[in-house]
Amino acid sequence: MSISTTSIEQLSINAIRTLSMDAVQQANSGHPGTPMALAPIVYTLWNKHLKYDPANPSWPSRDRFVLSCGHASMLLYSTLHVAGVKKADGASEPSITIDNIRNFRQLHSPCAGHPEVHEAAGIETTTGPLGQGVANSVGMAIAGKWQAARFDKPGYDLFGFDVYALCSDGDLMEGISTEAASTAGHLKLSNLCWIYDDNKITIEGDTDLAFTEDMPGKFRALGWHVVEVEDANDLEALDAAFTEFKKTTDKPTLIVVKSIIAWGAPTKANTHGAHGAPLGDDEIAATKKAYGWTYDKFEVPAEVYEDFNANLGARGAEAKSKWEADFAKYKKENAEAAATWSSIISGELPEGWDKDIPTFPADAKGVATRASGGKVLNAIAAKLPGLLGGSADLEPSTKTGLTFEGAGDFEPGTYCGRNFHFGIREHAMAAIGNGMALSGLRPYVSTFFVFSDYLRPSLRLSAIMKAPVLYIFTHDSIGVGEDGPTHQPVEHLAAIRAIPNVAVFRPGDSNEVGACYKAAIELTDRPSVMVLTRQNLPTLDREKYACSGNSAKGAYVIADCDGTPEVLLMGTGSELSLVIQAYEKLTAEGVKARAISVPCLELFYEQDAAYQKEVMPCEVTARVAVEAGIQQPWDRVLGFQGKFVGMSSFGASAPADELFPYFGITADHVVEAAKKSIGS
Amino acid sequence: MSISTTSIEQLSINAIRTLSMDAVQQANSGHPGTPMALAPIVYTLWNKHLKYDPANPSWPSRDRFVLSCGHASMLLYSTLHVAGVKKADGASEPSITIDNIRNFRQLHSPCAGHPEVHEAAGIETTTGPLGQGVANSVGMAIAGKWQAARFDKPGYDLFGFDVYALCSDGDLMEGISTEAASTAGHLKLSNLCWIYDDNKITIEGDTDLAFTEDMPGKFRALGWHVVEVEDANDLEALDAAFTEFKKTTDKPTLIVVKSIIAWGAPTKANTHGAHGAPLGDDEIAATKKAYGWTYDKFEVPAEVYEDFNANLGARGAEAKSKWEADFAKYKKENAEAAATWSSIISGELPEGWDKDIPTFPADAKGVATRASGGKVLNAIAAKLPGLLGGSADLEPSTKTGLTFEGAGDFEPGTYCGRNFHFGIREHAMAAIGNGMALSGLRPYVSTFFVFSDYLRPSLRLSAIMKAPVLYIFTHDSIGVGEDGPTHQPVEHLAAIRAIPNVAVFRPGDSNEVGACYKAAIELTDRPSVMVLTRQNLPTLDREKYACSGNSAKGAYVIADCDGTPEVLLMGTGSELSLVIQAYEKLTAEGVKARAISVPCLELFYEQDAAYQKEVMPCEVTARVAVEAGIQQPWDRVLGFQGKFVGMSSFGASAPADELFPYFGITADHVVEAAKKSIGS
Repeated sequence: MSISTTSIEQLSINAIRTLSMDAVQQANSGHPGTPMALAPIVYTLWNKHLKYDPANPSWPSRDRFVLSCGHASMLLYSTLHVAGVKKADGASEPSITIDNIRNFRQLHSPCAGHPEVHEAAGIETTTGPLGQGVANSVGMAIAGKWQAARFDKPGYDLFGFDVYALCSDGDLMEGISTEAASTAGHLKLSNLCWIYDDNKITIEGDTDLAFTEDMPGKFRALGWHVVEVEDANDLEALDAAFTEFKKTTDKPTLIVVKSIIAWGAPTKANTHGAHGAPLGDDEIAATKKAYGWTYDKFEVPAEVYEDFNANLGARGAEAKSKWEADFAKYKKENAEAAATWSSIISGELPEGWDKDIPTFPADAKGVATRASGGKVLNAIAAKLPGLLGGSADLEPSTKTGLTFEGAGDFEPGTYCGRNFHFGIREHAMAAIGNGMALSGLRPYVSTFFVFSDYLRPSLRLSAIMKAPVLYIFTHDSIGVGEDGPTHQPVEHLAAIRAIPNVAVFRPGDSNEVGACYKAAIELTDRPSVMVLTRQNLPTLDREKYACSGNSAKGAYVIADCDGTPEVLLMGTGSELSLVIQAYEKLTAEGVKARAISVPCLELFYEQDAAYQKEVMPCEVTARVAVEAGIQQPWDRVLGFQGKFVGMSSFGASAPADELFPYFGITADHVVEAAKKSIGS
Repeated sequence: MSISTTSIEQLSINAIRTLSMDAVQQANSGHPGTPMALAPIVYTLWNKHLKYDPANPSWPSRDRFVLSCGHASMLLYSTLHVAGVKKADGASEPSITIDNIRNFRQLHSPCAGHPEVHEAAGIETTTGPLGQGVANSVGMAIAGKWQAARFDKPGYDLFGFDVYALCSDGDLMEGISTEAASTAGHLKLSNLCWIYDDNKITIEGDTDLAFTEDMPGKFRALGWHVVEVEDANDLEALDAAFTEFKKTTDKPTLIVVKSIIAWGAPTKANTHGAHGAPLGDDEIAATKKAYGWTYDKFEVPAEVYEDFNANLGARGAEAKSKWEADFAKYKKENAEAAATWSSIISGELPEGWDKDIPTFPADAKGVATRASGGKVLNAIAAKLPGLLGGSADLEPSTKTGLTFEGAGDFEPGTYCGRNFHFGIREHAMAAIGNGMALSGLRPYVSTFFVFSDYLRPSLRLSAIMKAPVLYIFTHDSIGVGEDGPTHQPVEHLAAIRAIPNVAVFRPGDSNEVGACYKAAIELTDRPSVMVLTRQNLPTLDREKYACSGNSAKGAYVIADCDGTPEVLLMGTGSELSLVIQAYEKLTAEGVKARAISVPCLELFYEQDAAYQKEVMPCEVTARVAVEAGIQQPWDRVLGFQGKFVGMSSFGASAPADELFPYFGITADHVVEAAKKSIGS
């Protein structure tokens, strides 16, 4: 094994290694082997190449580093510590202290088992579920390309940045990573560099047990430039590889680095035993001896901090200060563009962003909410310059194209476009959305509701990361019709409502669509899910029924009786009109009924108790919920006496008009259920 | 475009095309373009190559044909019709009649919008959600290889078969297909052939919008043999390609076929407008003219039936009858092996299959249910020869390895093994499981519970297809501890319970593990999900508490008071012992409490009302449910007065022992909740 390094380089690298080993040992839990193997890569990247100012970790034009193999979290924490990354822009406290590292994997430590994005500055995304980080990195690279294309002017190179992602066998075995790599190759994202830790070890043993791809060949076929480094300890080769990436201007780069897990550990190196368990005190002592490491546990020699300060720190400070000067000049010459960019990056909604949201006249024949959704989306996007996105090859069906002048397509060569063609790659699409959101944009992604299953792991991460990705899912029930059970969502409303920190909107007519989009855009610390129909829905007469303005409260009384109702009828989406019809029938029969529209259960549950009781009085226990999905999310408001009109099985292939009666989802059944509930 | 064909070949191909066009037009819904383009491929494969007896569509050793691009369903229905496939082995009625085709996409027609496996003989799997069919085909190829390796004897070639899957751009863009292809390449599944319809058209337009991979290069890098056919109408080239597949004995084969969507349609050929909408009467008339087609709508000339009968039919009948003769001879010489194979394929459980399921002595320190699960799984697998499976690179953690003598690994060269190394490819793993189950085996697949999200679309298809795949998910809650929120399931119990036709088991101690495995194996028409802990759980003293035998009823009273209880305490998995502790504390305080173990909510809801009321009497409305997941699935049994002790947010990174109190999941909180519920 060739090792070409000065002693200070080796010392810094070993500081990252030993901090990682010590922390895992102290926690008695974690993954020491990968940090030990990959410290030279991270050292070379951060200290020699990354455009990053440790004093300003939120600088929008910084290069991004993503640790996709999140289980190697100590590699990141150790690096952030020795690199002197600060807690916030201009702060004096470090982002990660030695005490934080001593408390690795303990309650309230920012050094969580896997990196969590808001826990400490310098953590660019939450990783751990394999494949997500590399896919996030594609979204970040897109954000860099898009900002550069949209805002750089001749003579300025202000808004772009490079994105590096370090990944493992596990990342690259997951299907999402091929989807993401295929997308990046297609888009020729030359600002994207993945570094593949080719260590031949997985949890079950040697990768030969399950994984024998020609990785360079595969990536070349996906349109990538590939560089191979034979030894993770060869700093010159690593340096040359990063230089080659920077020189490659027409495609993304994969650097394949052969490494030895737990490098330097006398008995555990190159074994899967070093993957996910502490090395043990004896092995650590022997490894430190092999490194020539003479310092105490958790000790970092002063020279290491100085090394990073003299390289990464000095280079970053200079780059940041040049950027500030250039941006000031740019601002003078391009006041409007600068203001637009600043507004996007701030995440604030500009004055009047919602003023063109259309209203829809009452119309019994009505309009599909996917269609009104498309109109509302366009009206908002025209005012909100950071709102951009697309569909997984279903734009003509989901109606999510931005059609106003200047919207354009995001394609190789036209990186300023706002319409994305994600291809039939739902999972990567959502993870790319996360990467775009983490870069300050407001992405939306779209597919048929049933295929939300394909992207669920990334939606969960939007929720964990509080990333305001807007998910637009159309074709939301058996209303899909002829395509049949594989294409008809039944359990998906329940399943997505189950995820903490997601707001699921299912508007009941086109005016609710407008109100729900407004509410969703205003939620900046969580993903929103917009669930829309394929089929036409009547646009309700809002002179006769309550206006849709209270949609943001999650539920509101849309039609009511005098005095205390005998029964509450509640519904969402395409079933809201059945609720209204049932309300009218019951009222005509002299039954005192209240109709409640429930476009967002989560937001309703977040209202104060007084509002909740106002809408659904505790004393009214006769209740009916109507939704073309399963019952589970409604039990909380139904109690033992309530009845449900909806689905309890998969759907069927037939015209939609026949399926609703076939599955008993009709106004007459709602009336019947109401009477039963009153009588029980 | 070169067309080399005899007139009868062309007539048969055009019969498939015109039936498909007519059916889509009649339904006014569906996908005509792909059947028109690919009819020559299916014709060549079925009539010239497939080992398939139309009179015996369930013959276990038939070659399998999977239409992965399920939206082209009419291609399959038309083919099954003209090929004379019968409704069942030996039946005289056809599987698909012209009337069925006339009722394409109508309620109760077996010709559903997408192929549904149990709707008609000859449909090998349910397809539509893209990428699933190709991944199923890997499972089927595995089943063929495994049966051949396990049961063929020198001089016999009885149990193997080939598997063909026809797939689209959409299939191959989905990440799952790369996972599946990588697995197949690694395993050198030479009995597997994918045919890729390279038509350059997707819904949003030309594939160049989003998809510019070098597909042959990619598949070669994945270990496949690649054959290219320049023209889907070149029957000689297609014939040669299938012959080349059959000659390739060391790897799977991809045949890339360039096609023109809606071939022959004068104005709609080669446009995405022909993908998902009827052609229209005029275009159909013009297309039929271009084909030289002079027959009526839905008419099939007698020569076409004769063509298939003379080729596919004669070849299939001969092969099947030779197989019968050979098998009879084999049976005489290898009675035990023949009986074992027949028993596997019948799906029946052999006498005494469950007799070695271990019981576990009471033990306060206890054992993790993943550990007892591994023991139970081994005890069953040793008696159930068709039970086989593995993990997505987590076997040392999920404890799902089969360790008894003769279990072995399934690897290239040792296809008789029963332990699979699926790699870090959860999604393909589950879809492969579906393919294995559809081939008559009893597969299990395994990963951490949180990563059930990665395979959810395939789990949904297990449920739709009634495929008895056993999902073993360990590390089932915040009990995961230090790995943190990305690795801690919170919403997953709710989300999987939401899927119709799935049984979710979460056993509360090791003896419930045994009872739940027994119940799961006995469910042969649905997938079962086994949810197991990472951490130790006390093994309850079943002398003191009720035995676990009623686990199969979903819920049972495990400890009770005299007379009518004041409060019902119910829980699952790791929280069952908290329920018991709370029961003891309340009892000691003089509160009349009943403890209920609920290992499977779905099975409990399927019991008759009398049993449900016996366990949870209606009049007892003070109730507490305890589960380290979200509340949603419990509302149905809690009503307005019940209380829930569980999770309402994502977890955190810390030792598990600290997390349960941190999130309020303790016996004391259960006691407190019980008192509140009684008091409210």
